[in-house]
Amino acid sequence: MPRVSDSFHDRLRESWRRSDSALCVGLDPRLDRVPAHFKGVSDPLFAFCREIVDATADLVCAFKPQFAYFAAERAETQLEALIAYIHREHPGVPVILDAKRNDIGSTAEQYARELFDRYGADAATVNPYLGWDSVAPYADYDGRGVVVLCLTSNPDSAWLQDHPANDPTYLRVADMAAENDRGNLLLVVGATFPEQLGRVRERAPALPFLVPGVGAQGGDVGAVFAHGLDAEGAGLVVSASRSIIYAGEGEGFADAARRTAQDLRDEMRRARDAATRAMP
Amino acid sequence: MPRVSDSFHDRLRESWRRSDSALCVGLDPRLDRVPAHFKGVSDPLFAFCREIVDATADLVCAFKPQFAYFAAERAETQLEALIAYIHREHPGVPVILDAKRNDIGSTAEQYARELFDRYGADAATVNPYLGWDSVAPYADYDGRGVVVLCLTSNPDSAWLQDHPANDPTYLRVADMAAENDRGNLLLVVGATFPEQLGRVRERAPALPFLVPGVGAQGGDVGAVFAHGLDAEGAGLVVSASRSIIYAGEGEGFADAARRTAQDLRDEMRRARDAATRAMP
Repeated sequence: MPRVSDSFHDRLRESWRRSDSALCVGLDPRLDRVPAHFKGVSDPLFAFCREIVDATADLVCAFKPQFAYFAAERAETQLEALIAYIHREHPGVPVILDAKRNDIGSTAEQYARELFDRYGADAATVNPYLGWDSVAPYADYDGRGVVVLCLTSNPDSAWLQDHPANDPTYLRVADMAAENDRGNLLLVVGATFPEQLGRVRERAPALPFLVPGVGAQGGDVGAVFAHGLDAEGAGLVVSASRSIIYAGEGEGFADAARRTAQDLRDEMRRARDAATRAMP
Repeated sequence: MPRVSDSFHDRLRESWRRSDSALCVGLDPRLDRVPAHFKGVSDPLFAFCREIVDATADLVCAFKPQFAYFAAERAETQLEALIAYIHREHPGVPVILDAKRNDIGSTAEQYARELFDRYGADAATVNPYLGWDSVAPYADYDGRGVVVLCLTSNPDSAWLQDHPANDPTYLRVADMAAENDRGNLLLVVGATFPEQLGRVRERAPALPFLVPGVGAQGGDVGAVFAHGLDAEGAGLVVSASRSIIYAGEGEGFADAARRTAQDLRDEMRRARDAATRAMP
């Protein structure tokens, strides 16, 4: 178990060192897409994800369960069980709970209790629309990571986040996080916007980035590492969900997930090494 | 029961007409603040809120349960029961589930299922940081309301929402909602910024506003109605939570909540009438 005094950044660095991987497997289990043999069990989302976790834990620097898929199925207890399972069976692999919560301060405190105390997440994604006073209650949890949405991977994100052109919101969010970091803040920057990823890296040189959007959303791994690496050749948690967890069907789904995860991890290693060699 | 073909705006207008009230009681039950006699029961949050609801239902145009307070206590089933109770015992009073969710489109669909199908909310609050493609999955639910955060009531909200000065994000959000409305969109505009409330009203003349921030947060009721009413002298859902639900302690808490809600409803009626008389 990690020492309580370790910051989330310390624990993430340790996970990068041990795994030599930037891959984060996103756990987005849809009941209508899990293999048929799970559909009769009482906890199909947990049972499906557990096999994905066991098949890929040595290949990843983090797991990222997506709250919405559990909430839509009334499966909060399966999400609790999944996070507890990862902590017990794969200690040292951080769990980033992707819930994109937020609210004003007194209510944000309740969400922080939910995500960190109830679910036991090591880190959680948080929406910055309400400003720093809404993010602070999460950041006050010692040892937990707070992953602030900066530039998301979806097509319409630029409308608000990359506006106005001369002082865009996503760079202001990056500045806010860099100024308030105590070894616990990260930024979400989509792989679908590699040039902007480079600009965020300039503004927040010491923050790790959670990068969604490779795999099903089409982001380019080489461009992510070329623009997003930090000065130490690290700093990236690159998540893929659907392309891995639904890589195969039927009984062989976990093996197919492992093969796809391994290929993606290896592609990221090559991209990282190429980008590191190109560094000035 | 409302006809399925009614839009959320239609149902809200009917609720305003019947109640002659702009008051929305926010249900933010904290386990450490409910009267002592609830602490031994198996469903204290539900039991407390049910009494508040029964004591105030004829005084309000809507109820607004806050998801965070239930989630922090592992009380999703109590939240489900509360919303079902309001629908059954006080039909026609819309329930706005305040969860401030959002995510990219395919995940937002899961949240929409959670909020509307699982919890049965008539409307839900949604965060616009990810752009319209993340709001659309909620707006595609016929008859349900989508309450988009525009300018929130907390101190740090202006940092992102009221920036840049010549084309602030909150007015762009108001434009986005006005353009996409099909009788189902609302905007959150905090009572703590009455002048900006007036600017949002100019940009979105036909949208109802959910206005938090009177009561414990200090927003002025008179200013809210002077700046926020629509051309028909309506358009406002003004929510108060802590100042009502914790108005009294012990056995008399529901009576105290009713008296405070009645006073606030009456103050809003006077403010509305004064603002209507002042209209050009």
